[in-house]
Amino acid sequence: MVKRAVILAGGEGKRLGELTKDTPKALIKVAGRRILYRNLKLLQDAGVEEFVIVVNKRFKEKIEEFLRQSGFDATLVENPHPERENGYSLYLARGHVKGEFAVLMSDHLYEKAFIEEALKGKGLIIDKLGLYIDKTEATKVKCENGRIKEIGKGLTNYDGFDTGFFVLDEGIFEVAERLLQEKEQLTMSELAKEAQLSCTEVSGKFWMDVDTPEDVKRAKKYIIQLAVKVAGDGWVTKLINRKVSKVLSYYLVDYLTPNQATWLTFFIGLFSALVAYFSPPLGGILLQINSMLDGIDGEIARARMQTTKFGAWLDSVLDRYVDFAFLTALAFHLKPSWDFMPWVFLAIFGTPMVSYSTERFKGAYCEDAYIVIKELRFLLGKRDERIFLIMIFTLFGWIKELFVFLAIITNVRVALTIYLVWKRKGKE
Amino acid sequence: MVKRAVILAGGEGKRLGELTKDTPKALIKVAGRRILYRNLKLLQDAGVEEFVIVVNKRFKEKIEEFLRQSGFDATLVENPHPERENGYSLYLARGHVKGEFAVLMSDHLYEKAFIEEALKGKGLIIDKLGLYIDKTEATKVKCENGRIKEIGKGLTNYDGFDTGFFVLDEGIFEVAERLLQEKEQLTMSELAKEAQLSCTEVSGKFWMDVDTPEDVKRAKKYIIQLAVKVAGDGWVTKLINRKVSKVLSYYLVDYLTPNQATWLTFFIGLFSALVAYFSPPLGGILLQINSMLDGIDGEIARARMQTTKFGAWLDSVLDRYVDFAFLTALAFHLKPSWDFMPWVFLAIFGTPMVSYSTERFKGAYCEDAYIVIKELRFLLGKRDERIFLIMIFTLFGWIKELFVFLAIITNVRVALTIYLVWKRKGKE
Repeated sequence: MVKRAVILAGGEGKRLGELTKDTPKALIKVAGRRILYRNLKLLQDAGVEEFVIVVNKRFKEKIEEFLRQSGFDATLVENPHPERENGYSLYLARGHVKGEFAVLMSDHLYEKAFIEEALKGKGLIIDKLGLYIDKTEATKVKCENGRIKEIGKGLTNYDGFDTGFFVLDEGIFEVAERLLQEKEQLTMSELAKEAQLSCTEVSGKFWMDVDTPEDVKRAKKYIIQLAVKVAGDGWVTKLINRKVSKVLSYYLVDYLTPNQATWLTFFIGLFSALVAYFSPPLGGILLQINSMLDGIDGEIARARMQTTKFGAWLDSVLDRYVDFAFLTALAFHLKPSWDFMPWVFLAIFGTPMVSYSTERFKGAYCEDAYIVIKELRFLLGKRDERIFLIMIFTLFGWIKELFVFLAIITNVRVALTIYLVWKRKGKE
Repeated sequence: MVKRAVILAGGEGKRLGELTKDTPKALIKVAGRRILYRNLKLLQDAGVEEFVIVVNKRFKEKIEEFLRQSGFDATLVENPHPERENGYSLYLARGHVKGEFAVLMSDHLYEKAFIEEALKGKGLIIDKLGLYIDKTEATKVKCENGRIKEIGKGLTNYDGFDTGFFVLDEGIFEVAERLLQEKEQLTMSELAKEAQLSCTEVSGKFWMDVDTPEDVKRAKKYIIQLAVKVAGDGWVTKLINRKVSKVLSYYLVDYLTPNQATWLTFFIGLFSALVAYFSPPLGGILLQINSMLDGIDGEIARARMQTTKFGAWLDSVLDRYVDFAFLTALAFHLKPSWDFMPWVFLAIFGTPMVSYSTERFKGAYCEDAYIVIKELRFLLGKRDERIFLIMIFTLFGWIKELFVFLAIITNVRVALTIYLVWKRKGKE
């Protein structure tokens, strides 16, 4: 496994205008996190232990300050001649790395899956699809027998795009030294071609370079998109809720922490309950809106690389209180006779029990109930579905029917959960 | 670590009378489990992988049948001359074990902690305290410079009791061979003394040999006692509930599986709710009885070595339903006006939320909330305390006060849990 990485941040980043006047490109914030933070964190999570960052002299102090604040440990190597290009920057890392090491550009963003796969490769990582980049602007690579033959922006016959991510060894410094004896400037492309690096394909994953203010916006959009994908979403969440939360997360990711988003959603949920007491249909609509907002905290957390177990725990506990407050408000709106009250109690109690039975499963087995017992995914009664149906029932004024429906569906679901868990895991 | 064990089951077990007429002592059931099962399981859990059992020819088929049914894998070595004593039995294991191996008597019972510690020892394991044995009948050991000097029942000056558990190596077979050339019979005591085995002390843990029908009863009592000790019990459980459940578990352990005990307790709980609708004080008393019974399933499971995660999960889910049924029944008994209903709803919802918030913690962190956040143990509102107070309140006829009390105590507890988890684990 590759344990070292060199990040080339020696450039000047002129095209970003105002954004990089006082700040190197590596320190630009995209979706609430600096590019350098994202790359260091992803590499670290993938097993990289030592970092070398080649920096433009002008920005060295800024980078040092960033490292201090973010708690990453890295060796800084100053590049006194940024105009000599990034191949020269890499050459300056000589003596600071040994064995195999990754090399990446400080203005490139990559998703987790890309980094994990790329670190297993060798030479230059190329992408055949380039789903997220401007293909006309991108550097293309032509390979032959698994090695680079041609590299450049103007190639028309090519095998993939240069992702700016390399896995190299110390041999590269000798090639660089030879080339630098002949010429002043050296780009990574020239160096890669001359060294006849291997081509490794990692296609279809998110990566892009950030060159212009428009790129920053585009990158943010993609990062939010990736943060929206969650295994185990119910169908209402997939078809409706995520469509809305995605848009809001895009605007909120720079301003809200995930936990702030959780509390905000909670208070909107309580407000929907208050409204439901006076007007169930209006409350129902607000609750469905709240359900749409419910995904935002998780999306922001993933996009900002700030997911915590605490956040997931808090979100669950508060969701139960919103459900409770809403149904209690409906009960007070209805004020039924005691003959009808069993349905009210069963609905109010059964609702958290759906969650309790599956969460307690995780507590017992340290595994996700929805992964171990797949049938649970197809059983009606998950929160997103319940809330959507609550809205429908309240819009039609079917409050009594709603309580009967919830009382049955939630408690039957718990009974079925007991049966399914017993069938699958009864002996453990 | 010791990976092999020899179990000496070559004896005749005459003193157990009817119990061992057709069955070897190793297959006697104590607290619902055969002694041999207990020893094999404990050794296996402690890392032992290979077993050799030296058996009396008469009982070989019985042992083979047991192994088939219980799924343990062991090499059986026949002892055609049980009258030549257990030192000779051990000698017959020669060639079936190598390196270091444990030796234990098939009619001895040991607790988990004893086996784990003993396996780290060397030579004969002795116990200075002998808390669970008849000391006059026990074999005593005198050591000198860490090795056995004298061994026998009649010693008055001794360092500890012979636990029947040894950690030996192949050297023991040479000593046995030499002794067996001079004499017909050879006991483990003679062999141990002649070999000048090391003495290793493991004191105060449960172990005993089963010689008489009275021993079987005594052993059962100790095993139940050990099964009663649970970390994290509330004070009502400790001071009251366990005292009762212990006695019942002693009588039920041979007849009920843990899951049967769980369901039985559940139905008694539902019955207490039904009674509470007509007479809250009577229902309250029944609920407290139910709370006393609630420990039985776990005690039986531990005593029978049948603990499962499913059992713990099922018990939790069903407890929530009992709590709900009881409070709902009280609400129907009271039938208060809607002015008072917020308290009823908050009590009925807050009750499962106490459990939800701590169980969901385990789901998030895969750690026990009561271990990580010690303050939770001292917060009022755990189930045993709630139920005890429910009984008190119902006996005094304070039904309204009960709802107000529960509504406050449970939901405040959840709020405090959120605060404490945030303080301790907010960054994770």
